[in-house]
Amino acid sequence: MAPSPGTACIISTGEEVLRGELVDGNSAELARRLEEAGFQVQLMFTAGDRRADLRFVIETGLARADWVFMTGGLGPTEDDLTSAVVAECFGVALVFHPPSWAHIEARFREFGIPITGNNRKQALFPAGAQVLENPHGTAPGFHATRTAVGRTQHVVALPGPPREMVPMLDALLADLPGARRPQHSFMRFFGIGESSLAEVLRPWADASGVALGYRALFPEIEVKLYDASAAQTASLRAFVLEKLADCLLDFRSRATPELLAEYLAGSGLTVGLAESCTGGLAGKLITDQPGASAYFRGAVVSYHNDIKRDVLGVPQALIEAHGAVSEPVARAMAEGACTRLGADVALAVTGIAGPEGGSAAKPVGTVWLAKADAAGTQARCERFVRGREWVRIFAAYRGLRWLMEDWLRERWQAAVKGP
Amino acid sequence: MAPSPGTACIISTGEEVLRGELVDGNSAELARRLEEAGFQVQLMFTAGDRRADLRFVIETGLARADWVFMTGGLGPTEDDLTSAVVAECFGVALVFHPPSWAHIEARFREFGIPITGNNRKQALFPAGAQVLENPHGTAPGFHATRTAVGRTQHVVALPGPPREMVPMLDALLADLPGARRPQHSFMRFFGIGESSLAEVLRPWADASGVALGYRALFPEIEVKLYDASAAQTASLRAFVLEKLADCLLDFRSRATPELLAEYLAGSGLTVGLAESCTGGLAGKLITDQPGASAYFRGAVVSYHNDIKRDVLGVPQALIEAHGAVSEPVARAMAEGACTRLGADVALAVTGIAGPEGGSAAKPVGTVWLAKADAAGTQARCERFVRGREWVRIFAAYRGLRWLMEDWLRERWQAAVKGP
Repeated sequence: MAPSPGTACIISTGEEVLRGELVDGNSAELARRLEEAGFQVQLMFTAGDRRADLRFVIETGLARADWVFMTGGLGPTEDDLTSAVVAECFGVALVFHPPSWAHIEARFREFGIPITGNNRKQALFPAGAQVLENPHGTAPGFHATRTAVGRTQHVVALPGPPREMVPMLDALLADLPGARRPQHSFMRFFGIGESSLAEVLRPWADASGVALGYRALFPEIEVKLYDASAAQTASLRAFVLEKLADCLLDFRSRATPELLAEYLAGSGLTVGLAESCTGGLAGKLITDQPGASAYFRGAVVSYHNDIKRDVLGVPQALIEAHGAVSEPVARAMAEGACTRLGADVALAVTGIAGPEGGSAAKPVGTVWLAKADAAGTQARCERFVRGREWVRIFAAYRGLRWLMEDWLRERWQAAVKGP
Repeated sequence: MAPSPGTACIISTGEEVLRGELVDGNSAELARRLEEAGFQVQLMFTAGDRRADLRFVIETGLARADWVFMTGGLGPTEDDLTSAVVAECFGVALVFHPPSWAHIEARFREFGIPITGNNRKQALFPAGAQVLENPHGTAPGFHATRTAVGRTQHVVALPGPPREMVPMLDALLADLPGARRPQHSFMRFFGIGESSLAEVLRPWADASGVALGYRALFPEIEVKLYDASAAQTASLRAFVLEKLADCLLDFRSRATPELLAEYLAGSGLTVGLAESCTGGLAGKLITDQPGASAYFRGAVVSYHNDIKRDVLGVPQALIEAHGAVSEPVARAMAEGACTRLGADVALAVTGIAGPEGGSAAKPVGTVWLAKADAAGTQARCERFVRGREWVRIFAAYRGLRWLMEDWLRERWQAAVKGP
């Protein structure tokens, strides 16, 4: 086992969290990073802005672990008590820190906001504490230590906003003696459940001894290879290409819309959509990415069959003979989108999202996809489960992945072969 | 002040939470409901599956409050320790509860899953505890009490999955002597920030003595009137109609897409969209609602100007003279959508979502909306802030609200006048 920097407790502060108005995402973010760095997280606490409660959780945390990491309570208002209570616990005074005050003044000047006397409070720290710079906000953090019954106890106070908290923590951990700097690698999958994925990968994990972590990034799954060597990473990549190529997205952890943006921007191709059951979701996902106008022509959301006929040019007879959710209609939608939108390639999605509209032959969740370009048209049928929301999301993601599938396969092969 | 059922601490259990793999949403949900019922929540704890830690947080919670509410740890596996540790704390045995076992067996039969010996564990409870039925899952909960130093201490153990936890908690609170059954009323706003909204409402709140709670349901805001009388609710409604009609959605807490679905389903009107910068998002929001096919014809996502011209019939000269983000083009898009999609009413959205594409005259965030029907076409210009994601979301929501604005105003008037 790698050496550990110690045990830790996490304290989040804030009346909003205690009243349930805000879900505490900070503690999870902190815990993940601390575990990565080798800490053993023991307990988490949430306290409001009562001085006695804050003091109680700090003392309790220090009694149960070497380190206490706190978030929040560094602001300028009266209920921001972190510095004062830590100083109280440690039996030290609060000391004014001129460089922090200069930083705070500069931030206010930069944003053209008048500074108040209250803000001076944000430059007060427990005597002896190391001040942690905050390049992303006004409130600096601090790292205070004391020696009690022969061991060193640490309190690290971080700001509440995640975009300030995370970089400050990362900077602290980067310099911390004993902290692990893990070299993880990642993969991203789509179209397989977490438990099925874990089952397929278990034999490899057992044989290699590499720990794998799973994280649901709905509708995708991220797999983390903890501290895998280059050889181990290469071995799992080969294993995945053999067993899971249909569900693999990338050997990094990037989402379908981002990957598609990279593919399309690099390909010089333009794309168009004919959406029925997804109702605009596929277009929304493509245009979430900045710069989409370089390759996205547009979409026809042909929710009503008249639109399939009038705007996309799908023959009425085809709809009547096969139904709107069918291979011939999907193909005609894709071809119509290609022509009418002037796109190099077009994707069509037509399916039964539910809750109504299913039948024995075409149950809710049946989706036909088609892809058309100058070389011809392909179609595929999918069955998605778990109701309207899932069917729509999976149909859109499946279609977007399909658009770049050849490109993905080339990337994987290149990654396996190495440079 | 209403009587309070007491003080409470919340404990969530689970290694996934402690390792940061899962964000703890349960504690917030619990806290909100407990505060509503009149409890004062003191502290929250998270513990993993170490017996000593669990015991420590239970004892600590009971030392700091009258009630400890726990979630999780009621499953069949070895690391599900809640019942065993509570029994240990209370110095009582675990007792087998035949009705719970019958319930568990019935659930497994219903789903056709073979039951294992491990599941028997889920029918074991601390002696003397009241078993809480779980109509939504296998694991029953329990409510255990003891008298210590002259006061009654309560431990309530609830299942981890929210859809099991919430109904069990609600059933418990409904029967609990001393718990408040608050009669809140709600309002929903869109298009104003939380702090601005609070500022406008403050004079009314100060004068009436009614506490108002704000909850961000992005991009909307819910306002809760705590225990307001019918007269107080009516008074705030009148105040809001006078001061905030442009930002009001409804005198209940319903989201824009839901309200629009009710409006369109009831109106007999069909709707079509011409989307540019929103890229399909408005159509996605409309079709998120089941039954949208009754009134949604479809959309043309005319991301490229060619599509505005070729599919929507916007004159090229108009685009060249005024630019794609302009009143004339928005109007022509809406009229084109109305005709080409065969809709009774059509909404057009064209704007600069960013990060590129802005200018001094039309900065990023400029959005033109137009609405066309048989009676004519209207247009309006908006400026949204905070970058691409916000601009797109606010543009779509603003447009959808506009579609039903007359209907909304009639509802508000009816609600103010009363039956």
